[in-house]
Amino acid sequence: MYTSPLKRFQRNGVTDMKTMHVDLGDRSYPIHIGSGLLNRADLVLPCLRGKQAMIVTNETVAPLYLERARALFPDIKLDTLVLPDGERFKTLETLDRIFDALLTKKHSRQTTLVALGGGVIGDLTGFAAATYQRGVDFIQIPTTLLAQVDSSVGGKTGVNHALGKNMIGAFHQPRCVIADIDTLNTLDDRELSAGLAEVIKYGLIRDAKFFAWLEENMLSLTRRDPAALIEAIERSCQNKAEVVAADERESGVRATLNFGHTFGHAIETATGYHSWLHGEAIGVGMLMAADMSMRLGWLNEDDVHRIDSMIDRAQLPTRAPADLATARFIELMSVDKKVKDGKIHLVLLKSIGEAVVTADYPAALLQTTIDEHHAVKPQKGLGL
Amino acid sequence: MYTSPLKRFQRNGVTDMKTMHVDLGDRSYPIHIGSGLLNRADLVLPCLRGKQAMIVTNETVAPLYLERARALFPDIKLDTLVLPDGERFKTLETLDRIFDALLTKKHSRQTTLVALGGGVIGDLTGFAAATYQRGVDFIQIPTTLLAQVDSSVGGKTGVNHALGKNMIGAFHQPRCVIADIDTLNTLDDRELSAGLAEVIKYGLIRDAKFFAWLEENMLSLTRRDPAALIEAIERSCQNKAEVVAADERESGVRATLNFGHTFGHAIETATGYHSWLHGEAIGVGMLMAADMSMRLGWLNEDDVHRIDSMIDRAQLPTRAPADLATARFIELMSVDKKVKDGKIHLVLLKSIGEAVVTADYPAALLQTTIDEHHAVKPQKGLGL
Repeated sequence: MYTSPLKRFQRNGVTDMKTMHVDLGDRSYPIHIGSGLLNRADLVLPCLRGKQAMIVTNETVAPLYLERARALFPDIKLDTLVLPDGERFKTLETLDRIFDALLTKKHSRQTTLVALGGGVIGDLTGFAAATYQRGVDFIQIPTTLLAQVDSSVGGKTGVNHALGKNMIGAFHQPRCVIADIDTLNTLDDRELSAGLAEVIKYGLIRDAKFFAWLEENMLSLTRRDPAALIEAIERSCQNKAEVVAADERESGVRATLNFGHTFGHAIETATGYHSWLHGEAIGVGMLMAADMSMRLGWLNEDDVHRIDSMIDRAQLPTRAPADLATARFIELMSVDKKVKDGKIHLVLLKSIGEAVVTADYPAALLQTTIDEHHAVKPQKGLGL
Repeated sequence: MYTSPLKRFQRNGVTDMKTMHVDLGDRSYPIHIGSGLLNRADLVLPCLRGKQAMIVTNETVAPLYLERARALFPDIKLDTLVLPDGERFKTLETLDRIFDALLTKKHSRQTTLVALGGGVIGDLTGFAAATYQRGVDFIQIPTTLLAQVDSSVGGKTGVNHALGKNMIGAFHQPRCVIADIDTLNTLDDRELSAGLAEVIKYGLIRDAKFFAWLEENMLSLTRRDPAALIEAIERSCQNKAEVVAADERESGVRATLNFGHTFGHAIETATGYHSWLHGEAIGVGMLMAADMSMRLGWLNEDDVHRIDSMIDRAQLPTRAPADLATARFIELMSVDKKVKDGKIHLVLLKSIGEAVVTADYPAALLQTTIDEHHAVKPQKGLGL
């Protein structure tokens, strides 16, 4: 049975911080995970190379954490930009607002951008950092579970396009990541669950022991138990970091991180990126991918049941919108980046804890999977 | 005395092509320079990894070369996008038009973008390639002298912002460059001269022999002698490639490639990027930098006279706009990327053929240089 070193650690009365390192040669960086980190200017100082910085955040996060974040950067020229909140603002237009602010405030190539917020703020700010003066430093301070386990590792940055999600972007690594779990206390339940979808993903694609740990600890996670959260974030980041270190530019194994995403993106695109959260769509997408894996004879019914139950206990929806027709669903999947020379590449499961990327499946099977998924009534009231 | 191997080559009756290689590890690529290359599909084929491509060009170049360029890509799904012509379209808005076209035509991550045109098309298309789906391949087919000697080496891509030139961008290397000198026959004289400014730059910053060769051959170049053009382009690309290979991300010696640019960008920004061509502004900028180098005791009067004469014989302006006040000039220079923690770093000459980057000069000397430059009447009728 998998035993958490962190739980033992906690029994000794210390739960404040774990630090892990993402190993990418001269672009390596630390991820600090713990409680009270927004008071730790000592963590930020080693990541700063210039004497200027700009914190980019949004209207929801700013009243909660901006002042504390500002205090992390004493003794430098610090500016702030507060953007509107929401995935619909993850656009080139909003990116241009960041450039406007940087140029108006005369930020040089030695500036550091600081992303204070969830995945949208992280993706936007990271992409601005990747392209402002052809690249400046940035620091991530993720304030949602999804951003802490996902956006903060891997260097993916970018914006959406009306014709597809995350279609424009760059790979750009942060100088460091500060994941303060205290910020999760202000996250609503739906957002927390959306983050758990990505946590579950790491168990499914490459860490069966972690999946088993999640089966035992899901209740602690939904109740926001600090030790459980730190453990889940660390294990997720560790899994992702291992994959990214092996394949920084997503030419091979990294594609397994997109488990559930090709199905999920279709749902997000169909619903205009607002009624469904990213993690909610990915949760359903993982189930559909698991279902298809079973139809290929790789998973058994019990595996699929375990996955379905896990998604459900994370308080995530388990069914796609019923009125999203199969043909449209497949069309939306085919716009996704995981298409190579016309064939949709899917991430599927050989077993719980082992993912493969393949385009070698009968086309009819994909159709059947989506069809039969629709035949089951939606369990939750999300929708179109 | 420097003797061109290519001239000897030409005496044997063969002038069609020279190929040089930019050495950047797994991002190395060839630059083919010569005549009749728009008929050479065999040069393009090895650069194509997918089965899709999109040629991006503009309204001026399309009627001249688009059909021939299309014929370079038989047997693949080929789309075309024709943009308006001009530096003022080098913006995020135009970039978005490229993304629109790519997504509408369902270009996957395996597509190749082809830049057919001058520096603006190259920078825009290269930046689109750098950021579409976080990076796809691109091929450069530069059709101006400036693009052939400058934009085609170094991987700099990007767009302008209302508050500064080239402020947004990325480093992204092409898979290959096809520089067909026949396309220079449709270039107007002013554009040709603007390209020669960058050619002269390579002599000044690191290749005194090439500078001497240019002093002897400038008339052949302004008359568009093919052998002289091939020689000048190759020597320029070779010089730039050596610098870039040593310093791909512009942390050190590469900054010397910006010789004349900090002064020049101030002129371009002040005049709104339209009345002056980039190369014209850089020509004046190089003279101002040479002048300042003399004031620091590094160049002598004869050196400055040689440089002034060379710029003049390349049919380039030698004076900045008289009504661009010194204070404003310095303010515009300080928005340039070559500012580090508030101090303007300048590229200056220790001698003809040796550049240095420095912020170690009396501030008053920069002011005097610009002041006295203004005291001389403009020699040509360009202007504000």
